[in-house]
Amino acid sequence: MSVRRGRRGRAEAEANGPKRQVDYHNLTSPFPTMNVFTEDRIEAMHAAALSILEDQGIKVLLPEARQLFKAGGAKVDETSEMVFIGREIVEAALTSAPKRVDIKAAVATRDVSLSLGRFVFQPGAGCPHATDRIRGRRPGSARDYRELVQMSQHFDVIHMIPPLVEPQDVPMNLRHYELMKTQLIHSDKVPFVFSRGTPQVMDSFEMLKDFRGLSEDEFRGASHCYTIINTNSPRVIDVPMAQGLIDFARAGQASIVTPFTLMGAMAPITVAGAITLSHAEAMAGIALTQLANPGAPVLYGTFTSNVDMKSGAPAFGTPEHFKASLAAGQLARKIGLPWRCATGSAANTNDAQAANETQFALWGCLLAGASVIIHSAGWLEGGLTNSYEKFITDVEVLQMVAEMCRETMAGDAEIALDALIEVGPGGHFFGAAHTMQRYETEFYQPFSSDWSNFGTWTERGSQSADERATGLWQKIVNQARPAPHVDAARVEAMDSFIDRRTGEGGAAPES
Amino acid sequence: MSVRRGRRGRAEAEANGPKRQVDYHNLTSPFPTMNVFTEDRIEAMHAAALSILEDQGIKVLLPEARQLFKAGGAKVDETSEMVFIGREIVEAALTSAPKRVDIKAAVATRDVSLSLGRFVFQPGAGCPHATDRIRGRRPGSARDYRELVQMSQHFDVIHMIPPLVEPQDVPMNLRHYELMKTQLIHSDKVPFVFSRGTPQVMDSFEMLKDFRGLSEDEFRGASHCYTIINTNSPRVIDVPMAQGLIDFARAGQASIVTPFTLMGAMAPITVAGAITLSHAEAMAGIALTQLANPGAPVLYGTFTSNVDMKSGAPAFGTPEHFKASLAAGQLARKIGLPWRCATGSAANTNDAQAANETQFALWGCLLAGASVIIHSAGWLEGGLTNSYEKFITDVEVLQMVAEMCRETMAGDAEIALDALIEVGPGGHFFGAAHTMQRYETEFYQPFSSDWSNFGTWTERGSQSADERATGLWQKIVNQARPAPHVDAARVEAMDSFIDRRTGEGGAAPES
Repeated sequence: MSVRRGRRGRAEAEANGPKRQVDYHNLTSPFPTMNVFTEDRIEAMHAAALSILEDQGIKVLLPEARQLFKAGGAKVDETSEMVFIGREIVEAALTSAPKRVDIKAAVATRDVSLSLGRFVFQPGAGCPHATDRIRGRRPGSARDYRELVQMSQHFDVIHMIPPLVEPQDVPMNLRHYELMKTQLIHSDKVPFVFSRGTPQVMDSFEMLKDFRGLSEDEFRGASHCYTIINTNSPRVIDVPMAQGLIDFARAGQASIVTPFTLMGAMAPITVAGAITLSHAEAMAGIALTQLANPGAPVLYGTFTSNVDMKSGAPAFGTPEHFKASLAAGQLARKIGLPWRCATGSAANTNDAQAANETQFALWGCLLAGASVIIHSAGWLEGGLTNSYEKFITDVEVLQMVAEMCRETMAGDAEIALDALIEVGPGGHFFGAAHTMQRYETEFYQPFSSDWSNFGTWTERGSQSADERATGLWQKIVNQARPAPHVDAARVEAMDSFIDRRTGEGGAAPES
Repeated sequence: MSVRRGRRGRAEAEANGPKRQVDYHNLTSPFPTMNVFTEDRIEAMHAAALSILEDQGIKVLLPEARQLFKAGGAKVDETSEMVFIGREIVEAALTSAPKRVDIKAAVATRDVSLSLGRFVFQPGAGCPHATDRIRGRRPGSARDYRELVQMSQHFDVIHMIPPLVEPQDVPMNLRHYELMKTQLIHSDKVPFVFSRGTPQVMDSFEMLKDFRGLSEDEFRGASHCYTIINTNSPRVIDVPMAQGLIDFARAGQASIVTPFTLMGAMAPITVAGAITLSHAEAMAGIALTQLANPGAPVLYGTFTSNVDMKSGAPAFGTPEHFKASLAAGQLARKIGLPWRCATGSAANTNDAQAANETQFALWGCLLAGASVIIHSAGWLEGGLTNSYEKFITDVEVLQMVAEMCRETMAGDAEIALDALIEVGPGGHFFGAAHTMQRYETEFYQPFSSDWSNFGTWTERGSQSADERATGLWQKIVNQARPAPHVDAARVEAMDSFIDRRTGEGGAAPES
């Protein structure tokens, strides 16, 4: 029988044949972009945002930032700390900001290039807690952070390391050492630096430069790390955020300006209103980077979802979240900058709701044409927890999305008229030559999904995707080793630096 | 405080104010369509499909169907039962097939209109088993079928009733009475009729006409029900399927021709090859309907996914499934017919995998521009089981998709410059007039998702989405009543008909 022949042939080929090669690193979007508003409405939102910045102003808590705005031509009221940013300042900033932001990793194959039409994934970030099925939900620790960095390193479809979890067992004045050291040792991907004041930022830059063996010029000549700047909506840029924008811009490092505007809470209840506010704040942040250093790498960003109006609880992966992403994408295309968008879920466990909300919002980001899609793995409880198991089940979806970026051929060989003639009515293609040549490489192979039938699945213990994910992350974490580029002498030098700085008291965050 | 004022104001408005109105019935797609192949490759696939039909032929097991093909100009070999369908026959059929198929329900508000650019949802269909958390997995019964019809009736976002589950406790010769009676009594939506031979089909038409009070002319003058025709890939149309195509076409009732082509099994392993085969078979089926009755309502369809090449197990919600849907959508747009596409999952329980696969494939259908999206709620184990709980969690996603079809405004009122001025830096919008006017109506309200925080969720028993869904379907089923249009005299007449036909031995299915 041809099935048997096919199976035997396959066993042989498995030993010798070609294996499936995947490249989830350089993803160009195959997805069409979707608009939620007409172009004239986008123009109206942009105009409203410009008028807010010019006429209503934005509160900037850092004197140095107000000085920069003032020197750039903005009207500044030092008493109220309000800055009124004329549209010519914003327009100049949008012109000087680069349309493509490249960030160097430890190795060239991990570099990322951010521009409209391409996208990268970041896992869930900013979580005070971590959770998994073995140890339960707990305040994030250095160990959790390290393990989540190791998991981020493991999957090629994760392109940048965000602040996955807060290592709350490390004092705030020393935490930035732990974060940078862990990223540098356990990952060769693009690292993240918190903007919690100049001293911490400078320490982090120093560690990165030394570990990568970069001269000051080499470091400043390209981005080697990134930060995320959340404005305090509505219309406040606080001290560490403003300082971060300035420090990163002056050092030529990338910042992502991301207002976090929850519709009905810190922003108007309408998508159009919330995104207009978000747009104004993002442009203010971008303007500050360009005043500090024209041409500095900066990304536009948004994180706009809605709250439950009964309880005030934030929600994610909602239709309104999706529409807000689309609106932000339209504005990003208008100004031409690469931009960050976010998925997310308010679910409390890695169940169908969690999967559905995260994937729904993910499609919002994809159809919005986002360049950086954050919180795309592990993020639960509206970001209060990073779930190891959800990290696994979400990465499966990210890999499926990445598969959509692979070109699919429809040449004569793929249309397969020969095979269609070879296999007659009522036959099957298991043993066809056309199948045999491709059966190992044609299809995506999931790593966490279980396609076995109900009987087999039951015999194996009726495990849910959440339960199966536990063994998968445990294996990744247990087998993780320092990234291949890690040099013992450099680690030693880094440890000495940390020891010295710790002895000096570290660097307290600014607020 | 304005939050308090806001909350009090809300309590008052809750008693008197406008409630959120939703219409999930008439859905025009807001989504862009996505191509997987270039237009010239689609032309090449279409040409290959035409040449297969013309030169390789398709096996048609029903003599009457071969006669129709022969009378229409096809070359027929009676010994091999092969029919060679010239391209002019196919082209004539694609011309005479209507570009819009309207199907009447019990009430006009439930009618469906199927054409490119619009879409309807059907829940999971064809499942031999049903499952829920209370009664476990079991062979489908009449009770399961009734309950799933009641659930389909309950949600406006479900537009047509498919064969949700096989009521295996009803003998095959009587099952069609049970199916039609249950649909007519418990739903006012568009009903489904199995094509299991002319006697069953005619019985079903009779019941439908009598119950709806339609004259023969009224019945034949419009579609009042539909059937789904699966070819036996590769290249066989069996007796009941061919008979169904003829019977439905002659009666002016809608059929959906859906080859079920699993890549690497009953179809070539490549997307292009599998969809070329599916396209050829669908066009053969469409041609038969038009030969039987030019202008008869017929939908193009596809259900193409891949198998796990290690085990042969079917998989759904894969990247290849997604790409196949896109390719079929391109061909559907080429021929201009409304068409059916399918989502699905191979998961064995309503977990993150099940949610992710179903939603991933759903986006494939949406971006492919499908007119009918089947298996969009409840379908587990690659269709072997219909899950009550998954029905609930999937409908939440369908409602969120339907919300995307609602126009979102970005007029001056929504851009909300006034509110943006009213709420100063660091303030919030909870109590703003702009919020107060809209807080009850602006956002989608989920019915199964839980947005409470971790503490509250834990106090309430840490229920997963799957667990919460149990109470939701139980309430729906317990509160379900016969559809409002049901008339006691008509039910009595239907019972008499069924009694009489049962006494006559019913109607055995043909094979």
